[in-house]
Amino acid sequence: MNKIPVGVLGASGYVGRELCTIIQAHPSLSLTFATANDQRGQSVRIGSKAITFVAAEDAALDRAELVFSALPHGASKEWIARAAGAGARVIDLSADLRPGNGCDGVPYGLTELARQRIADASVVANPGCYPTSVLLALAPLVSLGLIVPGATVTVNSASGVTGAGNSPKRELLIAEVSEDFRAYSVGNTHRHLNEMRGTLRDWGADADLIFTTHLLPVARGILTTIAVPVTRSLDSVLAPWTEAYAGEPFIEITTHPPTLRDVVHRNAARISAAAVDGTRVPTLLVFCAIDNLMKGAAGQAVQNANVMFGLPETLGLPS
Amino acid sequence: MNKIPVGVLGASGYVGRELCTIIQAHPSLSLTFATANDQRGQSVRIGSKAITFVAAEDAALDRAELVFSALPHGASKEWIARAAGAGARVIDLSADLRPGNGCDGVPYGLTELARQRIADASVVANPGCYPTSVLLALAPLVSLGLIVPGATVTVNSASGVTGAGNSPKRELLIAEVSEDFRAYSVGNTHRHLNEMRGTLRDWGADADLIFTTHLLPVARGILTTIAVPVTRSLDSVLAPWTEAYAGEPFIEITTHPPTLRDVVHRNAARISAAAVDGTRVPTLLVFCAIDNLMKGAAGQAVQNANVMFGLPETLGLPS
Amino acid sequence: MNKIPVGVLGASGYVGRELCTIIQAHPSLSLTFATANDQRGQSVRIGSKAITFVAAEDAALDRAELVFSALPHGASKEWIARAAGAGARVIDLSADLRPGNGCDGVPYGLTELARQRIADASVVANPGCYPTSVLLALAPLVSLGLIVPGATVTVNSASGVTGAGNSPKRELLIAEVSEDFRAYSVGNTHRHLNEMRGTLRDWGADADLIFTTHLLPVARGILTTIAVPVTRSLDSVLAPWTEAYAGEPFIEITTHPPTLRDVVHRNAARISAAAVDGTRVPTLLVFCAIDNLMKGAAGQAVQNANVMFGLPETLGLPS
Amino acid sequence: MNKIPVGVLGASGYVGRELCTIIQAHPSLSLTFATANDQRGQSVRIGSKAITFVAAEDAALDRAELVFSALPHGASKEWIARAAGAGARVIDLSADLRPGNGCDGVPYGLTELARQRIADASVVANPGCYPTSVLLALAPLVSLGLIVPGATVTVNSASGVTGAGNSPKRELLIAEVSEDFRAYSVGNTHRHLNEMRGTLRDWGADADLIFTTHLLPVARGILTTIAVPVTRSLDSVLAPWTEAYAGEPFIEITTHPPTLRDVVHRNAARISAAAVDGTRVPTLLVFCAIDNLMKGAAGQAVQNANVMFGLPETLGLPS
Repeated sequence: MNKIPVGVLGASGYVGRELCTIIQAHPSLSLTFATANDQRGQSVRIGSKAITFVAAEDAALDRAELVFSALPHGASKEWIARAAGAGARVIDLSADLRPGNGCDGVPYGLTELARQRIADASVVANPGCYPTSVLLALAPLVSLGLIVPGATVTVNSASGVTGAGNSPKRELLIAEVSEDFRAYSVGNTHRHLNEMRGTLRDWGADADLIFTTHLLPVARGILTTIAVPVTRSLDSVLAPWTEAYAGEPFIEITTHPPTLRDVVHRNAARISAAAVDGTRVPTLLVFCAIDNLMKGAAGQAVQNANVMFGLPETLGLPS
Repeated sequence: MNKIPVGVLGASGYVGRELCTIIQAHPSLSLTFATANDQRGQSVRIGSKAITFVAAEDAALDRAELVFSALPHGASKEWIARAAGAGARVIDLSADLRPGNGCDGVPYGLTELARQRIADASVVANPGCYPTSVLLALAPLVSLGLIVPGATVTVNSASGVTGAGNSPKRELLIAEVSEDFRAYSVGNTHRHLNEMRGTLRDWGADADLIFTTHLLPVARGILTTIAVPVTRSLDSVLAPWTEAYAGEPFIEITTHPPTLRDVVHRNAARISAAAVDGTRVPTLLVFCAIDNLMKGAAGQAVQNANVMFGLPETLGLPS
Repeated sequence: MNKIPVGVLGASGYVGRELCTIIQAHPSLSLTFATANDQRGQSVRIGSKAITFVAAEDAALDRAELVFSALPHGASKEWIARAAGAGARVIDLSADLRPGNGCDGVPYGLTELARQRIADASVVANPGCYPTSVLLALAPLVSLGLIVPGATVTVNSASGVTGAGNSPKRELLIAEVSEDFRAYSVGNTHRHLNEMRGTLRDWGADADLIFTTHLLPVARGILTTIAVPVTRSLDSVLAPWTEAYAGEPFIEITTHPPTLRDVVHRNAARISAAAVDGTRVPTLLVFCAIDNLMKGAAGQAVQNANVMFGLPETLGLPS
Repeated sequence: MNKIPVGVLGASGYVGRELCTIIQAHPSLSLTFATANDQRGQSVRIGSKAITFVAAEDAALDRAELVFSALPHGASKEWIARAAGAGARVIDLSADLRPGNGCDGVPYGLTELARQRIADASVVANPGCYPTSVLLALAPLVSLGLIVPGATVTVNSASGVTGAGNSPKRELLIAEVSEDFRAYSVGNTHRHLNEMRGTLRDWGADADLIFTTHLLPVARGILTTIAVPVTRSLDSVLAPWTEAYAGEPFIEITTHPPTLRDVVHRNAARISAAAVDGTRVPTLLVFCAIDNLMKGAAGQAVQNANVMFGLPETLGLPS
């Protein structure tokens, strides 16, 4: 079978490189171009093969059946239009087309929750890393109507530093970050908040969200800890997730809280939950761990590509 | 001036060693004995001096005016009684005498909040590391009546691994923990919860507490992130803390969220707060960073010792 | 094609688990048993499948065509004999059968340097992690006669902590090791030294070896730095390695010194070299990086298994 | 007693900040100015006090009795002349005046080895971090004539990342460096090599030096491992160092190889040695650990300042 020609816009960041790595090893995708304006002409070894970056302007958009955009937020929109104009289907990993940004016609690519819409789409908005961990954890509670209407859902997330990108900034030097831990973008100002609020609204959930992000002194991984007031105690605390995600190859429900090591370098979301003891309002703690570059970005993007092109959903994805 | 002779029970753990280090450099305290049953007879270099551990049974309790107990929870109570019987004043760093454990006559040594009772006490229950970070953050809101009555206060804390002690356990090997992050003691089962609930009750606060602990791949430090529903918006979000802690040498109020590096190796609690945007119930995020071995244990214990013996409160403490 | 049934003795250590992980994903091997006396009856998830450990006494040795032994040094020899007696071929990852230990009939499994002997063998002594990094680096110089006869070769190696095993020891707790770096087994007393000396003697090299090991605060990886006095300057400093290892899928020669990140989680040895400037005796610096659990242990063991059973040498191995 | 007014040129780097921290806590020094052209006008909190950086052009050179220059190599020389012209004594922490750079009249500030010259000097060249660790380790062997004439001394050093400065470079991001280890500046091209060769020549030593530097994924500390061919075996392997450094407050000779943790945040050099077993030429392994920012830079600079101004040598220095 011929491989599907794909291109990557913005290939020199952590997400772009992870995408190229997966594509190079994918049995049904072949990398047609990879753009990186600041490294145009440079050759890098990714996995066992070399890639030469080109400028975005020089990308052979018309020779790709699928284009992934890992361009920065704001810069992506224009190139999505150009790629679509050239006849390619597009998976956008920037925030430009995600919920809460006024692009309502574009399916939001949480694969497990929107398979059919993704399969039919010409353009898919790939979810952000934090929202993936939060929304996969909350979705079963929303669909069962278990969240107390009008309640406040308190989300604490911690991410490894690849989530902050590979631009050289002093505050990300190892001499500054090792042995440290900090909150950032405090007070519900994080870019991902609109994405989560918009999605919860789309799902018909009536809840307020408090979302606090923290920076971990590790390279990869997100752990999200959520406190959710629920309408009733559950006999089996994991049942909402085991039922909602039965048979899902990339979602793992565990009795122990998940850790980063459980999921890094894999396209997996690992979820656990526990009932809180001793509060007047029954409350659940829900945990979700993902690799921010895999299920939180490049892995889920390729999962979506598999769905869009009728390939087996697990093809080419380490799980 | 003659130095005050002090002894340390349980000196070979991380807290015990930190205590010995501070005492050795303290201008008004002198170390009379340091016990460690499992290392009796061994000499260790702490700071610039050597200490030889003795068995607890061989400790010269009657020659110390002050005894610190860093013995394990459960084992401390008996030795506190013995030391008190020998005429020494006692600072207990175990959980045995803390609020919620039924020892209501013993002052709870959050120094800034109970100075006079500590000054007069013969026995002080030194607070746990997590509770110190949580209660110093919440106290000003409690005393101003700002917490919504009956509300749920959601606490997420993350600690470096010295908080788990130095017993060799597989799950604390660096090969297991590096590049990882995990929640533990999930569902309000942590030993420190009673201590915090008991104290909030003593303070007359009517709030439920959700408390989730996480293990960081760093050696030292605790960062606590608290979401608190409040009765009204504040004009100046930091005012409760700047007013309550004005002039306190060991409490630092900052506009930026504190980080572990701001406080490690110092007897400091650094606190910040921010209003959450976009929730129906006005909510504050409060952050508190401490060094779990300093303000969270040995540093606060020596701060209490200074208060008990009429010494300048900052004496011998790195700030 | 039917898969080859294999067993793993000593499967609960880091090397044993890495072996099981590779075998589970290997297209031509199937895991028949995995022993772990201290965890008998326990089920662990490795990759996407669960394994239940059995006691060594209960292992179905006669149902395996190949047995890997990752038992501790000293304990392995007896079980190799039992497995061989039951008709299985054996790859021993302990030191028991390696050069310098008086087992001269057993091929030493540096795959690239002994393929034919390995293919024909019923028992193979899999090399130690440090020796793999040192000997792959030195072999081309030995075979070209470039090392000054009688010279001293100075080897400095640094290893991640998985090299020290997963027994809970205080000195390997993250609270003890993070942000640290130390030399250990100093003065040519490391167990691996005999293995390297014996092999160099087998190769006819006349050189003294100084070998100093260091412990890195990382999980995986070995970087070895070697200073070798050579008989003459080289026009092309990398030529000995590019020629000796031309076409080798698991050996990568690079102009930049290799780093741990280049090789972890892959069955690769990455080698570089540079001429030293300003010394009277022409000297080369040779660098070799491997993953201690992959090319330094489990990966090379499976590479040897592929050779022994006539499979493609790269089968089932991440490179 | 009045405090001695001192200034710091280049105060915003890691070394400059460490200098300011020590000076702020020093009982006999007072900080008159701190320059940082790129952060002029900014106020930073160092220890318990705030400092406002000024431009170098605005520094009150004439009001300082002592000026430390932590300016970049090449840029320092001009400002040393200006400060000296304004009547201040100068300690230069750049490489500009060190041995091997043609400034033979300036004493080289390895304090323990040149006290009298330092005391009398108006300008002192403070040693580099790597050379401090290497030369303190080798000096006793040189003065006893124990190094084999014409021999090759093989030095392997590993440094924490603060040694690379705090300019934002991609290769120093924690996402790039964590869990990694690498050699750099390979083949005797490191700037510090001339400094060490020049000093050994000044000492009359006839030896070749191979010097390889490595980057550790930690913030602070240097561990140096040296293999030295010696003219005879020693009855007591540590005797050269215990005798040469008897009574030195900042040099610690230990039977165990030193580790980074033994010395970080202290102005200490910890040295150990062991005889190598099984080589034809008797060889010693010598280890030296220092904190690159303390004994390797700012700490030693203040130690030299204490000597220059007739203060107790340990004043204001954590040991």
